[in-house]
Amino acid sequence: MTVPFELSQRARRTPDPPISWLMKYALDHPDCISLAAGFVDNETLPVEVVGACVGELMGEPATGRAALQYGTTIGYPPLRRQIVERMAAEDGLAAESHHIGPDDVIVTTGSQQLLFLISDVLLDPGDIVLLGGPSYFVYMGILHSMGVNVRTVPMDADGMDVDALEQALEELDRAGQLARVKLVYCVSYFQNPMGVSLSLQRRQRMVRVVQRFSRDHRIFVLEDAAYKDLRFTEPGLPPIKKFDPTNEWVLYTSTFCKPFSAGMKSGFGVLPREVLAPVLRQKGNHDFGSSNLNQMVISLAIARGDYDRHLAKVRSGYRRKKDVMASGIREHFPAQTRWYDPGGGLYIWAELPADLPTGPDSPFFKAALQRGVLYVPGEFCFYPDSGCEPCRSAMRLSYGVAETDKVAEGIRRLGVLACEMLESAKVAVK
Amino acid sequence: MTVPFELSQRARRTPDPPISWLMKYALDHPDCISLAAGFVDNETLPVEVVGACVGELMGEPATGRAALQYGTTIGYPPLRRQIVERMAAEDGLAAESHHIGPDDVIVTTGSQQLLFLISDVLLDPGDIVLLGGPSYFVYMGILHSMGVNVRTVPMDADGMDVDALEQALEELDRAGQLARVKLVYCVSYFQNPMGVSLSLQRRQRMVRVVQRFSRDHRIFVLEDAAYKDLRFTEPGLPPIKKFDPTNEWVLYTSTFCKPFSAGMKSGFGVLPREVLAPVLRQKGNHDFGSSNLNQMVISLAIARGDYDRHLAKVRSGYRRKKDVMASGIREHFPAQTRWYDPGGGLYIWAELPADLPTGPDSPFFKAALQRGVLYVPGEFCFYPDSGCEPCRSAMRLSYGVAETDKVAEGIRRLGVLACEMLESAKVAVK
Repeated sequence: MTVPFELSQRARRTPDPPISWLMKYALDHPDCISLAAGFVDNETLPVEVVGACVGELMGEPATGRAALQYGTTIGYPPLRRQIVERMAAEDGLAAESHHIGPDDVIVTTGSQQLLFLISDVLLDPGDIVLLGGPSYFVYMGILHSMGVNVRTVPMDADGMDVDALEQALEELDRAGQLARVKLVYCVSYFQNPMGVSLSLQRRQRMVRVVQRFSRDHRIFVLEDAAYKDLRFTEPGLPPIKKFDPTNEWVLYTSTFCKPFSAGMKSGFGVLPREVLAPVLRQKGNHDFGSSNLNQMVISLAIARGDYDRHLAKVRSGYRRKKDVMASGIREHFPAQTRWYDPGGGLYIWAELPADLPTGPDSPFFKAALQRGVLYVPGEFCFYPDSGCEPCRSAMRLSYGVAETDKVAEGIRRLGVLACEMLESAKVAVK
Repeated sequence: MTVPFELSQRARRTPDPPISWLMKYALDHPDCISLAAGFVDNETLPVEVVGACVGELMGEPATGRAALQYGTTIGYPPLRRQIVERMAAEDGLAAESHHIGPDDVIVTTGSQQLLFLISDVLLDPGDIVLLGGPSYFVYMGILHSMGVNVRTVPMDADGMDVDALEQALEELDRAGQLARVKLVYCVSYFQNPMGVSLSLQRRQRMVRVVQRFSRDHRIFVLEDAAYKDLRFTEPGLPPIKKFDPTNEWVLYTSTFCKPFSAGMKSGFGVLPREVLAPVLRQKGNHDFGSSNLNQMVISLAIARGDYDRHLAKVRSGYRRKKDVMASGIREHFPAQTRWYDPGGGLYIWAELPADLPTGPDSPFFKAALQRGVLYVPGEFCFYPDSGCEPCRSAMRLSYGVAETDKVAEGIRRLGVLACEMLESAKVAVK
């Protein structure tokens, strides 16, 4: 007879992520067109670049051995220098103006690990995090597992509504809860799931707002810039981090997974020293350093110029697929659909009329599956009971991994289905 | 003026690891002979194998893209199949007799990450873990950060003393604390830091003992087999896991870091399904899967036979270095030194006479630094206040990363120093 055992409190607060069965469904039904997965485009993966870089590294015993030996917990020094140089050149985050050097940069197993580590060193059960409605569901899962309370701030075409953020903080202050507010989480570029970017003016204001409410303790902005490099047009926006010249208020996270290779699982961040130190101690417990080989390959690809050449290819590739999805929505979706044409990233967010719910138990979702199309129901992207009514008729539609013709066909099927169901509802009312 | 903030409870329980300044010292003093680091031997790193495997993977767009795309949280399926096949062939853990298949295997960022995840899903603050004195200090750091109480069980040449384990459990039972006991942690092969292996008979008994005390809830054995593949002689011992035919009591962890490449940071484990499921959910929050590229490279190296050829080379390499260190100890160390000649792994544990303490503030440690030799003080390997008096005159001596002539020279210097200090103490007494 099996003897039972109890899981830790944290494990008991960690349910299966809502999309795990979507992923399993897609695996079990390979003919299904998945617009659900946030995977990157297979065609654009840097096969030749990685082959050449590993060949170069392994061609010399000294570099080969260095790549296959343990590295340091904080990450490969030349890569951290390159990250700083690129942020200085591209975003104006120069060492002199922003107090950022290689020792303020950490390399992690994707930016996901860094989001986890930051949260783990700053948050206790009962603490409060503010984030957009809708938001990135995996990060919401982390917060849930940590027993954190979430307060949702509305989003619009310019990203998180910073007036509403200010108002939420005022309410929390009046309710005596300000002391528990630790973070404002914001995907600043081509947000997952809405595809919108925080406007320039709001970037600046967001920092001012957290400063204003940091009367007795510091409230940080956790900037998730995972999609930053996937922009379709120039120039890009500067990160929120730019408005933090003292390197004190904004915890900046980004990744090489989306623009280069997800399989190499390398992300990074720039943090104030007093947050970086405990993050490093926790990372020491997790793994004392991410794969050194992968960091050296990425560093070499940047040094050879391959990385930037690859970025240009990736951007135009996603732009073409985004255009295909956007035209399909214009052509086939009901006229009342509200959607956002993204300037980069991997997602389009589409809200159908409110009487056409898209949740996992809805007739629309089930009919879409029957017609062989999978999407992420919008309601998965809202934190429950967090002060914001979820949009129940939205879909997160990804043009990332599906091939171009499948993107077109999937969107056509969803649009035709939505029009049919709206039509038959109208007939039924008559 | 800087606004202060508070770290989470867990972060506040996570100090810098005791060896971090040793590591920094070694970096700052490159001429110093470090017998402290647990790094692997540079000469034996599989530079050619990795070059060839990555070349083969990137030579085909299909396999290249698969390696550079996201994988699954549980790990690359062919690698998990290979792990099961190897455990069946080598250790007799056949699917039929032990209920172990690829879906019971998880691949992680080194076995370190798996030790962390298992602990995080099973342990709450105040829970109790039993482990050997001395033990692996990084895992002790994890337990400390999780607020866990540790109870130390004495070690001898046959590994953890299972009679003493039984007695400790009896005492905890009488004290009404058995309900808080969750894990017995054991490095079963060439233990870090003592280099000893748990004897065959104790392996079997350890499982019986946890079963006997699992009256109301299950107490697991956490088997850390990180050094298993680094044995010097055949045949190897079967893992403790072998004595768990129902896949219910032993959480088995191991790694490709020590025998193959630390820079690829791939470890793995075999867990009962009811532990694997919450571990996977937590890993989804950490990173949703370790580097896919590295997993596919290791899988290919195994399939090509390169991995086993490499293992043979690694074993004979470490054996030669161990022999050099062992002869140095015999020749130069004081006759009263108590030390263990390991049958594998990376470490020799040497206990000097009790009147020659080796701690970080001791005259011996400081004099060793002056003579350019670094070791890990034995007391770092004892959990404080855990029911066992630490050995204050021991050293963990690694022959892993230092070159052979430096191993010899470092040991000579330590031995000469110890003899000199003992001699002058004798003179002083007279």
